[in-house]
Amino acid sequence: MTTETQSPAPKRSVSEMLIGRPLETRTLAHQVVSKKVGLAVFASDAISSTAYATEEILVILALTGTMAYFGLAVPIAIAIAILLVIVTISYRQTIFAYPNGGGAYIVARENLGQTAALVAGSALLTDYVLTVAVSISSGVAQIVSAFPDLAPFRVALAVGIIAFVTLVNLRGVRESGVIFAVPTYFFLVMMGITLIVGFYRWATGTLGIVTGVEMVEGTIAPLTLFLILRAFSSGSTALTGIEAISNGITAFKEPKSRNAAMTLTAMSSILIVLFLGITFLSRHIEAIPSHHETIISQLARTVFGEGSPLYLLVIAGTALVLLMAANTSYADFPRLAALQAADGFLPRQLTYRGGRLVFSWGIMALALAATVLVVVLRASTTALIPLYAIGVFLSFTLSQTGMVIHARKIGRLQPGEKIKGVDTDLEYDPNWRLHMIISGIGATLTFIVMVIFAITKFTSGAWFVIVLIPLLVLLFSRIHTHYQDVAQALSLENAVQPRMPSEEVVTVLLVDGVHMGTLEMVDFAKALGNPWRAVHVGVNPEKSETTKRKWEKYIGEGELLILPSPYRHLLAPIREYVVSLLQANPRRIVHIVMGHLAMDSVFTQVLHQNSSLILNLGLTGLERVVVTIVPVQIYHDDAGEAVNQNMLTGDSLKKARQEREQRSHSEHHKSIRQAADEQSEES
Amino acid sequence: MTTETQSPAPKRSVSEMLIGRPLETRTLAHQVVSKKVGLAVFASDAISSTAYATEEILVILALTGTMAYFGLAVPIAIAIAILLVIVTISYRQTIFAYPNGGGAYIVARENLGQTAALVAGSALLTDYVLTVAVSISSGVAQIVSAFPDLAPFRVALAVGIIAFVTLVNLRGVRESGVIFAVPTYFFLVMMGITLIVGFYRWATGTLGIVTGVEMVEGTIAPLTLFLILRAFSSGSTALTGIEAISNGITAFKEPKSRNAAMTLTAMSSILIVLFLGITFLSRHIEAIPSHHETIISQLARTVFGEGSPLYLLVIAGTALVLLMAANTSYADFPRLAALQAADGFLPRQLTYRGGRLVFSWGIMALALAATVLVVVLRASTTALIPLYAIGVFLSFTLSQTGMVIHARKIGRLQPGEKIKGVDTDLEYDPNWRLHMIISGIGATLTFIVMVIFAITKFTSGAWFVIVLIPLLVLLFSRIHTHYQDVAQALSLENAVQPRMPSEEVVTVLLVDGVHMGTLEMVDFAKALGNPWRAVHVGVNPEKSETTKRKWEKYIGEGELLILPSPYRHLLAPIREYVVSLLQANPRRIVHIVMGHLAMDSVFTQVLHQNSSLILNLGLTGLERVVVTIVPVQIYHDDAGEAVNQNMLTGDSLKKARQEREQRSHSEHHKSIRQAADEQSEES
Repeated sequence: MTTETQSPAPKRSVSEMLIGRPLETRTLAHQVVSKKVGLAVFASDAISSTAYATEEILVILALTGTMAYFGLAVPIAIAIAILLVIVTISYRQTIFAYPNGGGAYIVARENLGQTAALVAGSALLTDYVLTVAVSISSGVAQIVSAFPDLAPFRVALAVGIIAFVTLVNLRGVRESGVIFAVPTYFFLVMMGITLIVGFYRWATGTLGIVTGVEMVEGTIAPLTLFLILRAFSSGSTALTGIEAISNGITAFKEPKSRNAAMTLTAMSSILIVLFLGITFLSRHIEAIPSHHETIISQLARTVFGEGSPLYLLVIAGTALVLLMAANTSYADFPRLAALQAADGFLPRQLTYRGGRLVFSWGIMALALAATVLVVVLRASTTALIPLYAIGVFLSFTLSQTGMVIHARKIGRLQPGEKIKGVDTDLEYDPNWRLHMIISGIGATLTFIVMVIFAITKFTSGAWFVIVLIPLLVLLFSRIHTHYQDVAQALSLENAVQPRMPSEEVVTVLLVDGVHMGTLEMVDFAKALGNPWRAVHVGVNPEKSETTKRKWEKYIGEGELLILPSPYRHLLAPIREYVVSLLQANPRRIVHIVMGHLAMDSVFTQVLHQNSSLILNLGLTGLERVVVTIVPVQIYHDDAGEAVNQNMLTGDSLKKARQEREQRSHSEHHKSIRQAADEQSEES
Repeated sequence: MTTETQSPAPKRSVSEMLIGRPLETRTLAHQVVSKKVGLAVFASDAISSTAYATEEILVILALTGTMAYFGLAVPIAIAIAILLVIVTISYRQTIFAYPNGGGAYIVARENLGQTAALVAGSALLTDYVLTVAVSISSGVAQIVSAFPDLAPFRVALAVGIIAFVTLVNLRGVRESGVIFAVPTYFFLVMMGITLIVGFYRWATGTLGIVTGVEMVEGTIAPLTLFLILRAFSSGSTALTGIEAISNGITAFKEPKSRNAAMTLTAMSSILIVLFLGITFLSRHIEAIPSHHETIISQLARTVFGEGSPLYLLVIAGTALVLLMAANTSYADFPRLAALQAADGFLPRQLTYRGGRLVFSWGIMALALAATVLVVVLRASTTALIPLYAIGVFLSFTLSQTGMVIHARKIGRLQPGEKIKGVDTDLEYDPNWRLHMIISGIGATLTFIVMVIFAITKFTSGAWFVIVLIPLLVLLFSRIHTHYQDVAQALSLENAVQPRMPSEEVVTVLLVDGVHMGTLEMVDFAKALGNPWRAVHVGVNPEKSETTKRKWEKYIGEGELLILPSPYRHLLAPIREYVVSLLQANPRRIVHIVMGHLAMDSVFTQVLHQNSSLILNLGLTGLERVVVTIVPVQIYHDDAGEAVNQNMLTGDSLKKARQEREQRSHSEHHKSIRQAADEQSEES
């Protein structure tokens, strides 16, 4: 028992230790990133897809049952690279057209209307969750391949990594950007060395072919145009993540659009170099899609030699960048959710910035959804992949369709004309036709890829996303209608009826028992100066008797009305009584006053009935009724004893407790009973 | 869309369908049972133990590795029967000595003090939970043996049965008694037939021996006194459940003690007949303890012949009575928990009777604890059994030790003297010495059995109960101290300081935005007639500006004070402000008034910030501060639209919504933004 009177440590110390000290609102503008950090934050998702895109093409081509057609991978990859170039150019246009952030949601909202915007929003939010789940599951799979002993802890590992990434992001985007820059650049350097050494050895003729790999087995299918398209669409997973920068323009340093566009171009260039390089070299080492070894591993092994330290570094970098890819979603999901919430399509809480100025609710929502996915699908990348990428291509299509409309709007302007808009301004541009054609081609191609995706992966999981997105759109619409209705109902401008001010307040004291707290309550009612009356709900006839007697003894003024409650309900008799008071005068306010025992811990609080909280909720549905809670504080003083400061000091309570203990055996028992009686008087 | 104005169906209809209409408090006395129903309600636990007690003896004797010593089962069973007779006589004494209920808890409380009472209470509560878990798991095991296809659903089945039994008990004891009487009597009839036919065939020399059973295998141990004692203690599981009636005397019809005692005698007699009969016949058919077939099954099969319908009925009856045994705990656990709660050792909520006059909280607590046990231990009887029975024998020991003290107290009285007590009266009885000796022998024997149990089963699970019971005692004591401290702090008799009535109320309006709800709040403050002031927490500088402007425009009186909040906290600035008001005058009450948007569903309610609920909790810790919530109702009218009754009718809101939809595209977007602005004004 300590007698020190140190002030207690501030309550948020644990949270401060984990996520840092709270930041002031005025520091908001400083939470932005440079191009280099921006590349790491926003590009890891897109770039990490090179770790599997080539493999996805080969997996489909392997369905022909022969390696003869693997050569097709190179032209398919080139086609995908062209698609990537078109999408990149289209998104550069968007970044300049929408300097305040031009994600698919905003572009669709501005040009295609609310429903298209909600579809784009739902698609992107779904895909951000999947990015986290897929990337982390896939990263864990790499770790587990290297350390098979960890296999039983796959799910726990994945959940743990999600928790870690969540924590890092709750600290704020700049710090998380620095943390994540290292692994992303490490991966880029390692892959760069792999490609340079690989091409050098290929040019000098010293690049061998891969050995000891078993090809995946499956049902044999003939080589058809459909199969080639399927391989093309599978390889198009390389494009996932490309849209991240256009959503996050505002996170860049000024000039935002220019920096963001430059970062996008850098990212796409890196992506194309890596993707084509890996595909080209894979073809030359005769890499084979396998269940046991990834294409990246086969390539690095062949280039550097089995067990070389460089080989291990490439694998480590690949695993790391996959884990870091998840971070892209942590940068974008909360920002998009906040945007949709500000428009009233998602719960408004998503717009609140937490202590570290990040959208904490959005980060938590993403972490929760990804954790559920990972746990339900047991961190299996195989189970997650078919759900993935449809959303991205749907949002690509909508975004680029929106840019077609945008270009058409500009085309209708007079030269030099400028129209002020909500998200961006419309300004005449003589190249609008070119912009329109580029966006149109992009929209068409991404639409085709999405349809092929949806058809070829429908039964293996894509159906879930196809069902989910319309449901989300419906949900978002309903939320929006609700917010609009509330705004309309509360609006002072649109009020249709003149208000009738209330003229009388009647105070009703709810009395559960008569004790110190009751005195405080009566005190308050008297100090208010309005007419008051006291009622007691007669759940237990004996107790009602005691209460009435004690009321007369200790309060001695006003009558205590006993409301009968044969079914032992607390709320119903009070409601009935209050309604009758309201009906007596339509301009009367009924002011209900009730006590509440306030304890200092949840453990002690749940030992009490806490009926005030329940009654409070139960009475908010009544018009012209306000509820007041008079708390009585019972808390632990330095000596660790419960004490109501008004009445007993810690010492006197301690003495009282010692006296209790000194009482004789039978008396002790009686005192228990008596304490129980006193006890039951709480409200 | 219906235009009917029928009053909505009462909210508790689903619960009424499941557990029946609520009962009035005055019908409480009628919820009692006859001797016949009482036997079924309270005896199924005890009687069902005959299904495994004999087997437990044989399992231990089988450790010698030979059937040569199986003959010892009969004298051991006779010794157990004698123990049972002594315990029964001892409990009959208790039933008459404690006509208001004489469970181990009450007897220990009265005669041995608080700690012994808490030990007995913890032991019994633990064992009631285990009775449910063991009986239902064992019953499910029987069902699964008969229908192996159900094996994967063991846990689900057990949890489902717990849910069913819980529901039946929430309906009330009388109805549940009738439901459970059928299977108990069915089991008794079937076992009776088995024994009669068995003895007839034994007497006529036509009873064969059992065939085709493999004996359990294990490490061989020599026949020692310890092994015999172990077999004796294992067989003593036959005594579990014997205490049920003494706890539940008040559930019997008048004369309660006499009816309860007669039921106890009937139960013990049946138990002894069944137990000895089964043990004797088992010996003669040379039954062998086996993993694959129970002794009951071997016996019934030998008596009636393989696959006979009577054999199947015996197995069905055994499985049923095991499931029903759980019901005994449902009758006793809530009653004991309520008793301990009334003494202030458990949360007071356990004393509340629900709509059907049963202790609903206790029933739910038992169901929850048993479900957790069943789920954690995968409904495995093998895993549960070692935890079982220690608690029962501990409570037997304490109860009978208490009765020894009780008899000594009576012995000290003068002939004819009578002392009024709390739970019962002390009245001179010339036979007090005999009572004392019987109780003393019972206490000693049950103590020995408990110690042997604890030692022989320690490592296989008994340790958990041995650790748990002291922890429960500690927890119960801490709860008790808390309740006593609160009672002391609230007591009007023991108040040490004269109260200083408050002389002034200052009203503080918390203003989050200015809308219809704000008008109502200001209205209320003005109607109260006390000095008031309005404050706004400046989380968002732009919004603070708007609010201040709107306040001047629409309210126009009083100044709106903006409290700065650079870290975007809501509570801290308010607390600080309130504390400064309190310090200005120590006899001042600060009356905080805040708005609350009351929605009609949880879904719509969580779309709002609900800061009033959080602020309310955060401010209850302050002395001389009362919090008032002014609710603004936004609910759905018949047309399914959100409407604040004060301001807009459903029709006008519908019209407003149509107008919204008719607005042009860009205007529509602006209206979204505007709605969002309005929206964020909610508190």
